[in-house]
Amino acid sequence: MTEEFFEKKLAAQPIAAIPGMIAFDIPVHGDNRGWFKENFQKEKMLPLGFPESFFKEDKLQNNVSLSRKGVLRGLHAEPWDKYISVADNGRVLGSWVDLREGDSFGHVYQTVIDASKGIYVPRGVANGFQVLSETVSYSYLVNDYWALDLKPKYAFVNYADLALGIEWHDVENAEVSEADKNHPLLKDVVPLTKEQL
Amino acid sequence: MTEEFFEKKLAAQPIAAIPGMIAFDIPVHGDNRGWFKENFQKEKMLPLGFPESFFKEDKLQNNVSLSRKGVLRGLHAEPWDKYISVADNGRVLGSWVDLREGDSFGHVYQTVIDASKGIYVPRGVANGFQVLSETVSYSYLVNDYWALDLKPKYAFVNYADLALGIEWHDVENAEVSEADKNHPLLKDVVPLTKEQL
Ligand SMILES: Cc1cn([C@H]2C[C@H](O)[C@@H](COP(=O)(O)OP(=O)(O)O[C@H]3O[C@H](CO)[C@@H](O)[C@H](O)[C@H]3O)O2)c(=O)[nH]c1=O
Ligand SMILES: Cc1cn([C@H]2C[C@H](O)[C@@H](COP(=O)(O)OP(=O)(O)O[C@H]3O[C@H](CO)[C@@H](O)[C@H](O)[C@H]3O)O2)c(=O)[nH]c1=O
Repeated sequence: MTEEFFEKKLAAQPIAAIPGMIAFDIPVHGDNRGWFKENFQKEKMLPLGFPESFFKEDKLQNNVSLSRKGVLRGLHAEPWDKYISVADNGRVLGSWVDLREGDSFGHVYQTVIDASKGIYVPRGVANGFQVLSETVSYSYLVNDYWALDLKPKYAFVNYADLALGIEWHDVENAEVSEADKNHPLLKDVVPLTKEQL
Repeated sequence: MTEEFFEKKLAAQPIAAIPGMIAFDIPVHGDNRGWFKENFQKEKMLPLGFPESFFKEDKLQNNVSLSRKGVLRGLHAEPWDKYISVADNGRVLGSWVDLREGDSFGHVYQTVIDASKGIYVPRGVANGFQVLSETVSYSYLVNDYWALDLKPKYAFVNYADLALGIEWHDVENAEVSEADKNHPLLKDVVPLTKEQL
């Protein structure tokens, strides 16, 4: 843990490569017990650019996954928005690929995130990460509901596609799901239309 | 981790001692990467009794704290509702004390929670926990906004009050905040009125 982790000022930084994506600095307060953070605080984050549209349909789901070092999950684009965060002392290499039709199709953004970061990912942008710490708790909010039988309608791109230029660590030995091994290369992905999102 | 942890059926159990409190069983799906859970899923949990009133004012905050073994936080009652969970492989001894005026004032509930549990705590019920694992990530949703200068208006009861009958582990050596050491005994707590909540 570097000094950089604690007491950042709450701030938002739009990600130029992927329109609508926003990286938040989250203040983490440390003391004798550990630390505390307001991971999401609607009243403070809306004025900084967190989209009000996230709450438009009054739907809310909070997902949490626990993953071991070397695990790689992704890259998945679904018809809902995501607000992504790390909920413990872990770190991930987060990667995102724009799968929406238009000028930014195929654009990639990657950055290391720990608990002092929050990432807003608009619908249609594929989301993935690789675990850099021994374990990581990865927690996110979404505004629509997943269903197994809708999975064929979601869009995916293969994490191992070299055309993406993502700098994974030792990707050959990454622990992944069978499903994630079989997603298409970017060149075979049909861009998501506005109607699909 | 016992077998009990994985693949519970989503279910809700009202806590008789404290009206409005609900314990949820949360399905946790394990695989080669770790696990995944829908920690909160509005559409599935409202029909099971998660109060629709939680969303009445369209306010939302997600807090996350990371604590080491032996840390004890609490007991705090604020004028907002809480949905509480564990976001990693850790475990806590959760404890709750009803500070609302009425028949259930002073009623206590305690239970061990891990990631396969979610606890709904209505406003006016004091919330606390002690960490049983090496570390724990504790994550919760609230529906109103904390402010330092409002702290005098929040209600607290001293975790060490023997009258509560809470079975903490080695409470003398618990790692706590200075503030938590100085909260009143139950007998000195002024019950919270409906108007205060
Ligand atoms: C996304 C989702 C999944 N599941 C179930 C299905 C499986 O039993 C288990 C894991 O699902 P998978 O489809 O393998 O999830 P995974 O590959 O980890 O990907 C999801 O989880 C990742 C990590 O939390 C996210 O980064 C991805 O955006 C998300 O799609 O959880 C649910 O019950 N609800 C869900 O919302
Ligand atoms: C509750 C709250 C606190 N803070 C700041 C104030 C301090 O710098 C730091 C820790 O605050 P404390 O008042 O010591 O929090 P703590 O004793 O851990 O208790 C809070 O956090 C606990 C654990 O997450 C909860 O179980 C309690 O209900 C909640 O009141 O976080 C915020 O910035 N926002 C908040 O909402």
